[in-house]
Amino acid sequence: MMNMEKKGRLTLPTDVDMVEETMRLQELLGADALRDCDGTAMPDALLQSGAKIYATYYTTRKDNEWAESHPEEIQQEYLISDRVTARGKSLRIELMKGFHREQLKVNTLDSPKRWWEVMDRTTGEPVPTEQWEYDEETGEVVIESIPYHQYTVSFLAFLIWDPVHMYNFITNDWKDAPHQLTYDVRQPKTREYVKNKLKRWCQENPDVNVVRFTTFFHQFTLTFDDKKREKFVEWFGYSASVSPYILEQFEKWAGYKFRPEYIVDQGYHNSIFRVPSREFRDFIEFQQREVSSLAKELVDIVHEYGKEAMMFLGDHWIGTEPFGKYFANIGLDAVVGSVGDGVTLRMISDIKGVKYTEGRLLPYFFPDVFTEGGDPIGEAQENWLKARRAILRSPLDRIGYGGYLKLANEWPGFIDQIKRVVDEFRQIHANMQGTKAYTAPFKVGILNCWGNLRRWMANQVHHALWYREIYSYVGVIECLSGMPFDVEFITFDQVREGIDPDIRVIINAGDVGTSWSGAENWMDETIVCAIRRFVDQGGGFIGVGEPSACQYQGRYFQLSDVLGVDRELGFSMSTDKYNEMDSSHFILEDIEGEIDFGEGKSRIYAQGENYQILNMDGKYSRLVVNQYGEGRSVYFAGLPYSPQNCRLLLRAIYYAAHQEAEMRKFYVSNVDTEITVFEETGKIAVINNSREPRQTDLYVQGEIRAHLDMAPMEIVWLDVEERE
Amino acid sequence: MMNMEKKGRLTLPTDVDMVEETMRLQELLGADALRDCDGTAMPDALLQSGAKIYATYYTTRKDNEWAESHPEEIQQEYLISDRVTARGKSLRIELMKGFHREQLKVNTLDSPKRWWEVMDRTTGEPVPTEQWEYDEETGEVVIESIPYHQYTVSFLAFLIWDPVHMYNFITNDWKDAPHQLTYDVRQPKTREYVKNKLKRWCQENPDVNVVRFTTFFHQFTLTFDDKKREKFVEWFGYSASVSPYILEQFEKWAGYKFRPEYIVDQGYHNSIFRVPSREFRDFIEFQQREVSSLAKELVDIVHEYGKEAMMFLGDHWIGTEPFGKYFANIGLDAVVGSVGDGVTLRMISDIKGVKYTEGRLLPYFFPDVFTEGGDPIGEAQENWLKARRAILRSPLDRIGYGGYLKLANEWPGFIDQIKRVVDEFRQIHANMQGTKAYTAPFKVGILNCWGNLRRWMANQVHHALWYREIYSYVGVIECLSGMPFDVEFITFDQVREGIDPDIRVIINAGDVGTSWSGAENWMDETIVCAIRRFVDQGGGFIGVGEPSACQYQGRYFQLSDVLGVDRELGFSMSTDKYNEMDSSHFILEDIEGEIDFGEGKSRIYAQGENYQILNMDGKYSRLVVNQYGEGRSVYFAGLPYSPQNCRLLLRAIYYAAHQEAEMRKFYVSNVDTEITVFEETGKIAVINNSREPRQTDLYVQGEIRAHLDMAPMEIVWLDVEERE
Repeated sequence: MMNMEKKGRLTLPTDVDMVEETMRLQELLGADALRDCDGTAMPDALLQSGAKIYATYYTTRKDNEWAESHPEEIQQEYLISDRVTARGKSLRIELMKGFHREQLKVNTLDSPKRWWEVMDRTTGEPVPTEQWEYDEETGEVVIESIPYHQYTVSFLAFLIWDPVHMYNFITNDWKDAPHQLTYDVRQPKTREYVKNKLKRWCQENPDVNVVRFTTFFHQFTLTFDDKKREKFVEWFGYSASVSPYILEQFEKWAGYKFRPEYIVDQGYHNSIFRVPSREFRDFIEFQQREVSSLAKELVDIVHEYGKEAMMFLGDHWIGTEPFGKYFANIGLDAVVGSVGDGVTLRMISDIKGVKYTEGRLLPYFFPDVFTEGGDPIGEAQENWLKARRAILRSPLDRIGYGGYLKLANEWPGFIDQIKRVVDEFRQIHANMQGTKAYTAPFKVGILNCWGNLRRWMANQVHHALWYREIYSYVGVIECLSGMPFDVEFITFDQVREGIDPDIRVIINAGDVGTSWSGAENWMDETIVCAIRRFVDQGGGFIGVGEPSACQYQGRYFQLSDVLGVDRELGFSMSTDKYNEMDSSHFILEDIEGEIDFGEGKSRIYAQGENYQILNMDGKYSRLVVNQYGEGRSVYFAGLPYSPQNCRLLLRAIYYAAHQEAEMRKFYVSNVDTEITVFEETGKIAVINNSREPRQTDLYVQGEIRAHLDMAPMEIVWLDVEERE
Repeated sequence: MMNMEKKGRLTLPTDVDMVEETMRLQELLGADALRDCDGTAMPDALLQSGAKIYATYYTTRKDNEWAESHPEEIQQEYLISDRVTARGKSLRIELMKGFHREQLKVNTLDSPKRWWEVMDRTTGEPVPTEQWEYDEETGEVVIESIPYHQYTVSFLAFLIWDPVHMYNFITNDWKDAPHQLTYDVRQPKTREYVKNKLKRWCQENPDVNVVRFTTFFHQFTLTFDDKKREKFVEWFGYSASVSPYILEQFEKWAGYKFRPEYIVDQGYHNSIFRVPSREFRDFIEFQQREVSSLAKELVDIVHEYGKEAMMFLGDHWIGTEPFGKYFANIGLDAVVGSVGDGVTLRMISDIKGVKYTEGRLLPYFFPDVFTEGGDPIGEAQENWLKARRAILRSPLDRIGYGGYLKLANEWPGFIDQIKRVVDEFRQIHANMQGTKAYTAPFKVGILNCWGNLRRWMANQVHHALWYREIYSYVGVIECLSGMPFDVEFITFDQVREGIDPDIRVIINAGDVGTSWSGAENWMDETIVCAIRRFVDQGGGFIGVGEPSACQYQGRYFQLSDVLGVDRELGFSMSTDKYNEMDSSHFILEDIEGEIDFGEGKSRIYAQGENYQILNMDGKYSRLVVNQYGEGRSVYFAGLPYSPQNCRLLLRAIYYAAHQEAEMRKFYVSNVDTEITVFEETGKIAVINNSREPRQTDLYVQGEIRAHLDMAPMEIVWLDVEERE
């Protein structure tokens, strides 16, 4: 039985000069929706093509007239000045030094003494307001300083150039496009204005079926420096979601006084790597409540006009995070986002509370890739290999592409490649028929300070961007994005309240002190006792990098007893380690050759009585298993994404869960291949994640069923029930 | 004018079967002293050879009869049990698990409740004594435990086998030598006994001129595990210098109650890498006072018999640290120690308060080196290259060798090599004539938590041992050991009290959290302000590894403003760095090829406005200079010892001190060569530190004086004043 769907689930971009080609490709690829993009427009001739029509919609910009006539309702951002060390008893700090004055402008409409904060970073204390003044003429804050103390000023600035518009302007080297100002939809006049404007727009665009919001009200933090270079970018950042109007409401809601420090956070601007303070978590919650409630008003308008409301996951998405508590209240029909890899796919496809999800596959049809030396087909294949395994676990409902259709159309072989992807995608849906793939009979929990709010976002700096500092951790969730496990992202508070009994294996991965590893949470006896009990009674614990790290009472890893390892910080160099390797273990059974630990942590040594070291680097250890009571732990120095590391983690999880036999219920032997089984429809998918041919043995219920010769990147479908 | 000394300054080992060879070598090499060693004996025939006679002397062992008849005065050590996690409400911890029962025996003579401590390592609190009992029958402490808390027991044990004797026994695979028990000379009966014994020994050995104490009373911490493997060794450790008798005196002296935690220190046993607690520093001071006072009594006895007292730097040296406040009070004539490199040489040659210092050069004449595949000549050359440059700065008065003379005598060419070393050594003395070599007109301060007490011991685990974790820091002091700078080792308290105005450059080198880097000291505003002021007003600051590291108020390096760099811990990944290299700089002028940063720290980025990046690793920086007010800083990611790195550090120091011109007062161009000038005697030494020939230009007063063609390892002497 093969895929019967030949049409649907696909959105294509179009442009005014592409009418005929669009219609041809629409037919060839079975597209059922068309969209405009930044820099393209929907040709009128296609409005009646039978496809659904998407239109991008911006709520916070593209209306300088409104912004200029309501300067007090322009969006604001908390900035922190340079850190300046006083040489004497008076110090002047120039606020806008290092910022771009075309993007940001100091807010002097609202009282500085009420909303700004001068911090003595040497003592960690705010400077009393009577000991500083703002000199508006010079743009400097003048501080009564203590010599050789270091100071910062946290202050409010108006966003007089929308960060995304500015980014596009700089990137595309536009010359005379007017800078788009922002306005804050949360404020009373703008709120009404924007709602009415949306109504008018809906009236004026009867052919648009889907209003694609990009996005709602608050841009993630994106600040430029005085040389128009990116200065600070935090995809999860709330620093540009503030205004005195909002903060006064927050104070009432929270019941305590707001401090700029809650936002500027010592200059880190609440980077997602920071353990979020209680106040920042409160602020997130407050913003999500308010944003979702106002977004609902806009969505309701869209619905009144018989259209669907779709949200783009990114840009002005602050407050609408799809795994937040209030997201479902918005009443959106759909979310669309860019699929950089398996992780970012799951970030979209796991969303609940919408009718459908849609992913933009890579590459975008932009000139940087569709150019001499570019490899759009290779990029499409690489992207699909990562996306496909995640789709098999948690499917997007739709896929699509963005950019200039002309570029794709003219690149030899590219449309064929897309056709293969689209066909495979529809085939997956045909075979899964909305049912859930087989998953192991237990859950895996990723433990960090963010939990489900940042589901599939662990250890990431920015959407799917590769960083040397993080890829060895992101590999953990990239592997998991296509593995047969239900994954929960849990917080330390959830551990305090009692570990979900469905969870059999807990993973903690990250650098010491970060929100991912957990920092001081590991000094809390309720946390360490809960996890010790969990493992002692048969649970599994997997640590990557610096799990449970927090130097305290003679140990760096507070779960060193559970993990069987600790890290040498110098204090125990006088203690002999005696580490010796023994690599014969269930976890390594499929693994040939070297293991890639990426930027894995150094100076890890095994200790205790129940460990086995599976891999070493000189005298130190990199992969260690440990028996702890009835339970087991596995330590990895690092785990970048690769098919081999997927297999390592798969085996580590089944091992930690004491479910080694279960692993072979459905199994393929070659590490470059993976299996997904839809028991309800009786279908088995085997994928080859390599761009080379592979041979693999297929196991069903622990028995070898077949030997498969797989073409590069192939997906093979089989039936669960053998036919005689 | 050439060296006139042909004899003297040299000690040779001998043995009973080596009488004639000894006399021949004594004449050939100009030795003026003979010594016995562990495992050798002084032949009677040599007692009247005209050479001074050294005899090793042990105060704490080799008298099992005394020890066995005074079990309460056997030496003791504080041990910490394994860390054990309670699964229920009662926990049994077996004290001696993991220790060797032939080395250590639980002390039940003194009250456990008074002298032991059960610690809850999950809360960091001691368990009240009524909640635990010692079960003498099983050797276990029984604790009323909280489930999943982790516990340790700190307890006293008798040292029933001297650690050094045990080490020799195991290493040499002795079979039936009786284990040598220890006894504690500090205790009243043993004290009198040992003094009387020393008197008798002096009477019975009239031909011995020098009593070489090995050493006095307390062995550094050296503990074996149950498999006779080394378990813990800390060359600076005080854990085996305790007994209730001593601790009661300590309590009176200190004015507060003693706690075992002061010694066991969370299990780290006050490793020299730990920031020493106030209580541990008190204990060190108390012990040094008491030990020096009692050692003086023994030295006085030696002097009464017309002999000299020499101390071996090592083994039972705890309390006699030569840079401690009370050392000079002992009244020793000499200190002798092993010379592993330049640093360990300075550790001996910088000692004040004795008449002379003596260094044992390597290799020891032992069968492990004098064997097929061994390279004793190469080892001797390598050792001499490191020692020579340090001797030129701070000379030992004497050198010597140890081991079996027979082995050296029979190895072809080895005696010739020794002769070259001895000749060069005497030549140095002849040319320097007790005067001081030229040093730069300012001091260099090494800032750490130990200061002068651990002079030339910074970042070391154990005497001259190479560790991957430390060599990139030890390089700093190894380089300095042969450089034209007066080096002070200063503490943070000294910075608090005011920086010595002679110091122009301060160096801080080490891993975060360690005593070398400084840990929480960097949160102290008096420290950061003092150093900022020092640099701002023209001083120099050199940081290596994690200088001033202590995450606080938005920075990891608390002197990031001074250094122009910080380290990325993940929190500032959203902040753009823009680091770009510009390697044209005074510091790099002599440097060709790659720079070796060793295990240098990763993720270092430059920031601020006044930095210049001289070397990068990908997007991160490894060598950065920064202007700070009138002063300058230099950051190195790591600095292992090499001639090239010596030159880098030399230039960095002159640069940081604003004394670039002074550098060429006396200078040699080739990085493998160094110059030492004795202005008072008018002599210049140029050394080739390479085992290859080198060409180098000699500068005097900034002008090229000569071009030298140097043989491998050569030392060339010239006159400061040019003769026409």
